[in-house]
Amino acid sequence: MDFDKNRKIALRELSESLSNINEKEAGEFLDRLLKSRRIFVAGAGRSMLMLQAFAQRLRHLGKESYVVAETVTPAIGKGDLLVVASGSGKTGGVINILKLAGKHKADIVFITASSSPSPEKTVSLIVTIPGVFSSRQLMASLFEQTLLLFCDNICLALKGRLKVSETQMRKNHANLE
Amino acid sequence: MDFDKNRKIALRELSESLSNINEKEAGEFLDRLLKSRRIFVAGAGRSMLMLQAFAQRLRHLGKESYVVAETVTPAIGKGDLLVVASGSGKTGGVINILKLAGKHKADIVFITASSSPSPEKTVSLIVTIPGVFSSRQLMASLFEQTLLLFCDNICLALKGRLKVSETQMRKNHANLE
Amino acid sequence: MDFDKNRKIALRELSESLSNINEKEAGEFLDRLLKSRRIFVAGAGRSMLMLQAFAQRLRHLGKESYVVAETVTPAIGKGDLLVVASGSGKTGGVINILKLAGKHKADIVFITASSSPSPEKTVSLIVTIPGVFSSRQLMASLFEQTLLLFCDNICLALKGRLKVSETQMRKNHANLE
Amino acid sequence: MDFDKNRKIALRELSESLSNINEKEAGEFLDRLLKSRRIFVAGAGRSMLMLQAFAQRLRHLGKESYVVAETVTPAIGKGDLLVVASGSGKTGGVINILKLAGKHKADIVFITASSSPSPEKTVSLIVTIPGVFSSRQLMASLFEQTLLLFCDNICLALKGRLKVSETQMRKNHANLE
Repeated sequence: MDFDKNRKIALRELSESLSNINEKEAGEFLDRLLKSRRIFVAGAGRSMLMLQAFAQRLRHLGKESYVVAETVTPAIGKGDLLVVASGSGKTGGVINILKLAGKHKADIVFITASSSPSPEKTVSLIVTIPGVFSSRQLMASLFEQTLLLFCDNICLALKGRLKVSETQMRKNHANLE
Repeated sequence: MDFDKNRKIALRELSESLSNINEKEAGEFLDRLLKSRRIFVAGAGRSMLMLQAFAQRLRHLGKESYVVAETVTPAIGKGDLLVVASGSGKTGGVINILKLAGKHKADIVFITASSSPSPEKTVSLIVTIPGVFSSRQLMASLFEQTLLLFCDNICLALKGRLKVSETQMRKNHANLE
Repeated sequence: MDFDKNRKIALRELSESLSNINEKEAGEFLDRLLKSRRIFVAGAGRSMLMLQAFAQRLRHLGKESYVVAETVTPAIGKGDLLVVASGSGKTGGVINILKLAGKHKADIVFITASSSPSPEKTVSLIVTIPGVFSSRQLMASLFEQTLLLFCDNICLALKGRLKVSETQMRKNHANLE
Repeated sequence: MDFDKNRKIALRELSESLSNINEKEAGEFLDRLLKSRRIFVAGAGRSMLMLQAFAQRLRHLGKESYVVAETVTPAIGKGDLLVVASGSGKTGGVINILKLAGKHKADIVFITASSSPSPEKTVSLIVTIPGVFSSRQLMASLFEQTLLLFCDNICLALKGRLKVSETQMRKNHANLE
């Protein structure tokens, strides 16, 4: 089944893709996460699922996070950060959310693979994951994998900056599973 | 299509079912909601959807609520209230959650149609919605309708007790839709 | 806690609101459900939760249904029916979905409380739930309650038309709960 | 922020973890996916999100997939495959689902990091992701990353076996976003 070949393709692509992320953009993303009151995430399809994994880890780190369109998500406002991801940079529903968040004075970080995304002017920071369109994997898999790994790296850095212990993180983890 | 006949059946059943709820149980439920730090809801299928509607309204009223198994749900603990609903009173996944919540010292309210539910001894209050099994509607529809209306009635009472204004409720409403 | 008073208010309002639905609109909704290949539902907040309850019941009745933005939802197309609900008739995300569904040639039913909704011209049928704005209940509760009851009535009629037995419905019910 | 260091740690760990997966187990997983009528996924927390990403991709590949506890999930039965993931191999809710699926004669694949998981005897295949407990990343991140990449590799192999074109996959993709 060429499992070994597929594995190598994925790892090589992911390694290159992760390295392509601008370290300055990553650093600015980290700063915005640290100074935000609450963090909201939004996206579509598999990108959304990766951001949900990010939002869940942020809770473990003690940051108050929410997923747009989940049941208990409150109103966003000044001091809050919205993190959106869209490979194409053009997903209609995501653009609609961006506009609304800007209207409500939220800080916005837009993670995309596109060199010409169509975000509103209200976006504070664009984090580009370049080069994923030439992937040999299925559809936007490489974008989604890179998004997960990138956010996990950011969380590892956050842990150090927030000085959260492993013990505390385990205490913050859902316990009705 | 007998739309008018169906409508009358549903309304008559719902009216009777709502009236069957013990006012003392309702009052105790309200008290537990008021004194709890945070409120978690859990269930399966359509009962779960009704409790999600309840959790969302609690947020509008300024109460911190969470849905078990959604992305950002934290660890439950002492001072928190878990509200579970199960028509049959025997849903396996729900019973599993009850046990865990008891272990973590949460207060538990169990809403059920069963006269002999199988909850753990840790349940603090059982709210019974009696008589729904003889419904002429589909499956557990009457239980679910009564659950929605009952929780909406409770929220109306909560609004008075918490002295929340309509304006404040609208401010608490999600604004990225 | 005025539980008894609240109960009566809710039941009286709901009874009136359900009666206000035009029987011809209900009949046409039923016909469109019967002839559609697959049914998709979309909305925001508590209206969405009520439509999810509807989608789940449709599955019990043997109709292939999907919830927009859930994990496994396929592409919509000709022969499919999209059911959307918005009390105000103006929810931005919902309007965006309407536009896309129209582009993909889906049949569209729009359930709303508004006498002047802003749907695209592609909407095939508007079902109006009139008079809910004067409700004494919280926010759009009356719209949401009426939506649940209305869809449950429609499902009861569907059962007769599709000649599905209770036994078959129970077999179609999720069994990993 | 040590972003570059974290990136290298994650990639090195992921590369090793992916290589640790037994190719025979992967091949057998692929075979079971191919011969199954429908595929259901279940898990908790971030592992669940990774399996949801898998279920979504399966739909793109034309396989009928469902997520346990989502709105439209039907009853599982003979001929269906349940894929569950649990790092610890001991998540209570997951074990409950395993039992039920076994009772309903479903084929079961259990993906875990544990060398002594506690699955029911009904599990047909265990895919082990070994060595993730010594990770320097946060909590079970390495398990979750490996799970995503592994399932993506499996999907790449599936595409070849099912002879699905990129064009067809794009047609299967949700179009109301």
